[in-house]
Amino acid sequence: MNELDNARMKAAASAAEQISCERRVHEIIERLERGARETRHVFRVVHADTALEAARASDRRLAAGCPLGRLDGRIVSVKDLFDEKGSVTVAGSRILENAGKPAQADAMAVGLLRAAGCVVIGRTAMSELAFSGVGINPHFGTPDNPIDSSRIPGGSSSGAAVSVATGLADIGLGSDTGGSLRIPAALCGLTGFRPSSDFVSTKGAFPLSTTLDTIGPIASDVVTCREAFAVLSNLVPASHDGIEGVAGRKIGLIDDPRLMAEMDETVSRAYARSCRLLRDAGAELVGIDLGPLLDSIARIDAIGLFPGIELAARLGSLTDAECELLDPMIWERVRAGYDVRATGYLNMCRMRACATEQMQDRMVGLDAIMLPTVPIVAPRRDALQDADAFRRANGLLLRNTRVANMLDLPALSLPIPGPGLSVGLMLWGHRGGDWPLLAFAEAVEGILKHQ
Amino acid sequence: MNELDNARMKAAASAAEQISCERRVHEIIERLERGARETRHVFRVVHADTALEAARASDRRLAAGCPLGRLDGRIVSVKDLFDEKGSVTVAGSRILENAGKPAQADAMAVGLLRAAGCVVIGRTAMSELAFSGVGINPHFGTPDNPIDSSRIPGGSSSGAAVSVATGLADIGLGSDTGGSLRIPAALCGLTGFRPSSDFVSTKGAFPLSTTLDTIGPIASDVVTCREAFAVLSNLVPASHDGIEGVAGRKIGLIDDPRLMAEMDETVSRAYARSCRLLRDAGAELVGIDLGPLLDSIARIDAIGLFPGIELAARLGSLTDAECELLDPMIWERVRAGYDVRATGYLNMCRMRACATEQMQDRMVGLDAIMLPTVPIVAPRRDALQDADAFRRANGLLLRNTRVANMLDLPALSLPIPGPGLSVGLMLWGHRGGDWPLLAFAEAVEGILKHQ
Repeated sequence: MNELDNARMKAAASAAEQISCERRVHEIIERLERGARETRHVFRVVHADTALEAARASDRRLAAGCPLGRLDGRIVSVKDLFDEKGSVTVAGSRILENAGKPAQADAMAVGLLRAAGCVVIGRTAMSELAFSGVGINPHFGTPDNPIDSSRIPGGSSSGAAVSVATGLADIGLGSDTGGSLRIPAALCGLTGFRPSSDFVSTKGAFPLSTTLDTIGPIASDVVTCREAFAVLSNLVPASHDGIEGVAGRKIGLIDDPRLMAEMDETVSRAYARSCRLLRDAGAELVGIDLGPLLDSIARIDAIGLFPGIELAARLGSLTDAECELLDPMIWERVRAGYDVRATGYLNMCRMRACATEQMQDRMVGLDAIMLPTVPIVAPRRDALQDADAFRRANGLLLRNTRVANMLDLPALSLPIPGPGLSVGLMLWGHRGGDWPLLAFAEAVEGILKHQ
Repeated sequence: MNELDNARMKAAASAAEQISCERRVHEIIERLERGARETRHVFRVVHADTALEAARASDRRLAAGCPLGRLDGRIVSVKDLFDEKGSVTVAGSRILENAGKPAQADAMAVGLLRAAGCVVIGRTAMSELAFSGVGINPHFGTPDNPIDSSRIPGGSSSGAAVSVATGLADIGLGSDTGGSLRIPAALCGLTGFRPSSDFVSTKGAFPLSTTLDTIGPIASDVVTCREAFAVLSNLVPASHDGIEGVAGRKIGLIDDPRLMAEMDETVSRAYARSCRLLRDAGAELVGIDLGPLLDSIARIDAIGLFPGIELAARLGSLTDAECELLDPMIWERVRAGYDVRATGYLNMCRMRACATEQMQDRMVGLDAIMLPTVPIVAPRRDALQDADAFRRANGLLLRNTRVANMLDLPALSLPIPGPGLSVGLMLWGHRGGDWPLLAFAEAVEGILKHQ
């Protein structure tokens, strides 16, 4: 067992044994100070003092028998695009770092987690402006993939995932515009949940795409994601009971090559194994045709990309000096956004609204749709130096996940246990049916884990 | 007394004397069949049979002592941009007429009025696609101004206003994107009310601007507008009592030349008279500075116009033949919409959201803001043949009203009694404060009428 496994085991054991939150935070800070490779570049900023203070307050509440809720004392990492009062929201970008204005208030999501007793440990690394699924950040460094340090962690919520995978946090607060929670979760062996729009306020989060952005958690299991979602959405589900297994449940499988081609062998084996296990557990797996929906998305893509357009509008006209501060791989995607016409954009919005409605009809009778989160395993970092390789990898990483953003489906990635590199299984639910999806995902998780 | 005054008096008397709704509808249909000049071009379609049927049903309810509400048996005209099941929504445009698809359901506003017992008499004339404040429609004809037949009625809800002014309807259902309810109300001696956004559903109304469109009534007094608004918004105000006079109330007056210059003498005299009467009645008139807000609007205008952009997106790419079907004065405004970039449009949206918030701060402590609805009296139709004259008149007609759409304020125009051509007094309320504005407007109306 290496140091990493050690640390993760220890974190889990600490929580189980109710080791004081203060002690856990101390240990995390010490690990970060030791600067071992697997903790490098995970955080851009560590809030040692305030985290210790919050941890002590939580310990006092727990000792007094009056916790604020199930998340009291959980250690949370915050993606560097959420405002925290007094901190500069850098979002992985030199441009925002140079602007250098400390936020005047916590983002809504951060405020809700704090109010639930969570301890914010620090601000995590991310793709610049959240605009890639790879997770490489040339300005502030890229954390290693926790399973194989030669590989990328996935993004854009790279540090969020690695902080959880390495035991530096229990929950990584992140955002998902095209897969930014689910991709790093899939590549790091974790669970990431993108809620339906409007459940979690985006207030105080630097917007990549006002249309597609959603806020959610990365954690080591579904139940923690569910608990975090309850806090983030400020909602309590009608029932916490979950469901009994998957017998008789209907899962839609896609065979459209636009989502199923170019799958590498590790992924296709793991996916086939999941299908077999679920079928053995009594689930009914039915083929579904998403062709017309994927056609709609292709027609929207032919006009432009929401993140490119909306980020360009947000950034405004940049000076040459500012453009040079941007990662060229990010800048080329923003630049295209400036060229789209307003009429084209409005048609994109209208087509998306239509497709979203059609998808709701399409899902009638299904409990969930299932597909690999990402068709490939985490690529090696040295294979992405070349711009074309980067573009191809980025496209493949985002290919399956972004469909849920375009159709506004709640979507969750959970790890498929198995040897070697991590593979994520993605479940899509009905729009607005976030609680049933989480309950279903818990049942699926149980089957995959206890194979 | 001319035939027109006669007809209006008769309509009012009929309502007061509870003459059967069926008889009133009969008389209206007969007048329309006689084809007197003042009823010409008011309706594109008259629903004689269904109106008579609805009128008889209403009479039966009233005879049985079970009316559906205060609007049961009121005769309503519907602007030709609202869907009515089985009718083609033409919106004053040959392009939509040629498309020729009958609507499958009533627009929400129409459905709500019918459910309240209103009798829909027909579909009224309008500026093509609602895209001018003048009210001229070269395709389907332009109704005369009811006060001076050589003048324009104002638009875009031209037929809506004229139908009420000539006693062909009690309520004109219209839409207001830049002043389309208030301008014709002002030029025809009526009351027109634009609610705050989101109070009245735009579902089933052909959209000129998804950002700025609002739905509301034109009627002969404030109380009828209020009753129509209660039905259209599906809301009941906390209190129907209105307010006692205006003593001690604070009214903001604007002296910015951007809204107060180029006022003709009839308007400035009538406006000064209103101010005097309200001051005499104890209202406190205070000068307010809207400069920064008007600056914001100017900055938005410098990028583009919401209606032009959003209508262009709606129409899509038109063939040359289709372009030739459009009124050239309308087409030149749509055409400009195709050129705006998505980033510009998104910035317009963001700047508008900011200005709307700032305006809410600006109005703290005020009961209303007051200004002339339109700085000029109804122009003579023959003076608008020239394109430049049309543009200038259209700009002046929309100049003051459109500020309320840009800042999303509830806004009402009511007639200032006096000799000669009609002049409208406009009141703006607090965003979302539609009921208090209506109550205040009733008090102002009482003071102006009983001078």
